[in-house]
Amino acid sequence: MSDQPSAAVLIIGDEILSGRTQDTNLNVIARFLADLGVDLQEARTVGDGHDRIVEALDALRARYDYVITTGGIGPTHDDVTAEAVAAAFGVDLPFHPEALAILERRYDGDFNAARRRMARIPQGATLIRNPVSDAPGFQIDNVFVLAGVPQIMTAMLDDVRPRMRTGRVKVERAAVVSGAGEGLLAAPLEAAARARPDLSFGSYPRFAEGGWGVKLVVGGRDVAAVDAATRELLDLLREAGVPKAEVVDA
Amino acid sequence: MSDQPSAAVLIIGDEILSGRTQDTNLNVIARFLADLGVDLQEARTVGDGHDRIVEALDALRARYDYVITTGGIGPTHDDVTAEAVAAAFGVDLPFHPEALAILERRYDGDFNAARRRMARIPQGATLIRNPVSDAPGFQIDNVFVLAGVPQIMTAMLDDVRPRMRTGRVKVERAAVVSGAGEGLLAAPLEAAARARPDLSFGSYPRFAEGGWGVKLVVGGRDVAAVDAATRELLDLLREAGVPKAEVVDA
Repeated sequence: MSDQPSAAVLIIGDEILSGRTQDTNLNVIARFLADLGVDLQEARTVGDGHDRIVEALDALRARYDYVITTGGIGPTHDDVTAEAVAAAFGVDLPFHPEALAILERRYDGDFNAARRRMARIPQGATLIRNPVSDAPGFQIDNVFVLAGVPQIMTAMLDDVRPRMRTGRVKVERAAVVSGAGEGLLAAPLEAAARARPDLSFGSYPRFAEGGWGVKLVVGGRDVAAVDAATRELLDLLREAGVPKAEVVDA
Repeated sequence: MSDQPSAAVLIIGDEILSGRTQDTNLNVIARFLADLGVDLQEARTVGDGHDRIVEALDALRARYDYVITTGGIGPTHDDVTAEAVAAAFGVDLPFHPEALAILERRYDGDFNAARRRMARIPQGATLIRNPVSDAPGFQIDNVFVLAGVPQIMTAMLDDVRPRMRTGRVKVERAAVVSGAGEGLLAAPLEAAARARPDLSFGSYPRFAEGGWGVKLVVGGRDVAAVDAATRELLDLLREAGVPKAEVVDA
């Protein structure tokens, strides 16, 4: 593991790939990891198929310090994530006593077979707390298995945070330019980037009120360097005759 | 290639993995492919790094009939997708005469080096029309390389559509249940699914007005079978004492 922890996200769900559902979990997790200084380097989306989940999970958990999965841990037959994770790790999927107790309390008197499924946890995993609907997620080794419903997934992150090694948080500053296309900003942007090879410089065109605008984003882990680089970029833009650049939150 | 064409999406952009931008392109492409009867089987998101793009692209283009990429084809130094695609295919990245002509017309008198970058197209690729801002995407073999800005990406799909082999479109019907958790629906849902192994049956809990609701989705390529299976599912739900299920658009 490098000093800066790395991570991947694995989104599991047919509904994302069919287009019926717009995923929002990746964005929530991306911001969660950014705040912890963990580098999110890749995300994958697969359907609710056992083999595809195992394959993607094995590729990601071998490569990154952490993997966060979302989806497929509910009570219905199409929820196959727990089985796939157990298969990937080569462990059994027994009923977890604490998970059984949690669910038994919630579904007092109505704790049927489908709901018991949600207490099957890969051997050796620890539970991740679900303050919304109780049915827990779990952590096994470097993999965090969370629910797919956004409200539940987000709430589970509170119990993931203290388990992660943190890194230096990346700081970003943005300069917004209106009334000039990316093509006019490219040269000063590249000049600024060459002067600071340790920082990242991105250009993001977008439709804005009154036409096209461009957001130039300077990023890095050293606040002073990022601030200095942003000032240098503004100077270079001015020298290049770019009408108006304004520094905003990235 | 099977009768039913398959596809993957590769989202390219640091801004998605940093959490600064919520991706919406995957959802648009997923619905586009669903309408064509093309099975979207996987999506990956990587940053604007040459090697990661090459690696993901090679994995996906070998496995699926089609790959659609978004992002990284603008004029600035952080746009490295064209170079990465050329490297993946082992071809040069020359200026494309038609792309040069298109861009020369657009940037009449202001066609600088950065804008010329957008006319570099992998050898052997054909251009994909961009009716929004002119700078073209391109197709090389089974890979379609589109812009990242949602408005441009969406407009480019019009020129992708006629190039794709289509399949049988998947039909989906949904039964929405209010006032009953997934755990109570799991048994009838699984019974319905077992009776129709050729169809897909999914369960999607969600917060709705007045509490939790569940959407049960039946899908397949044979409309009559999907409709029959949906009726069977409703009967099974009624028999199980589920308060009220209503058929809606999936």
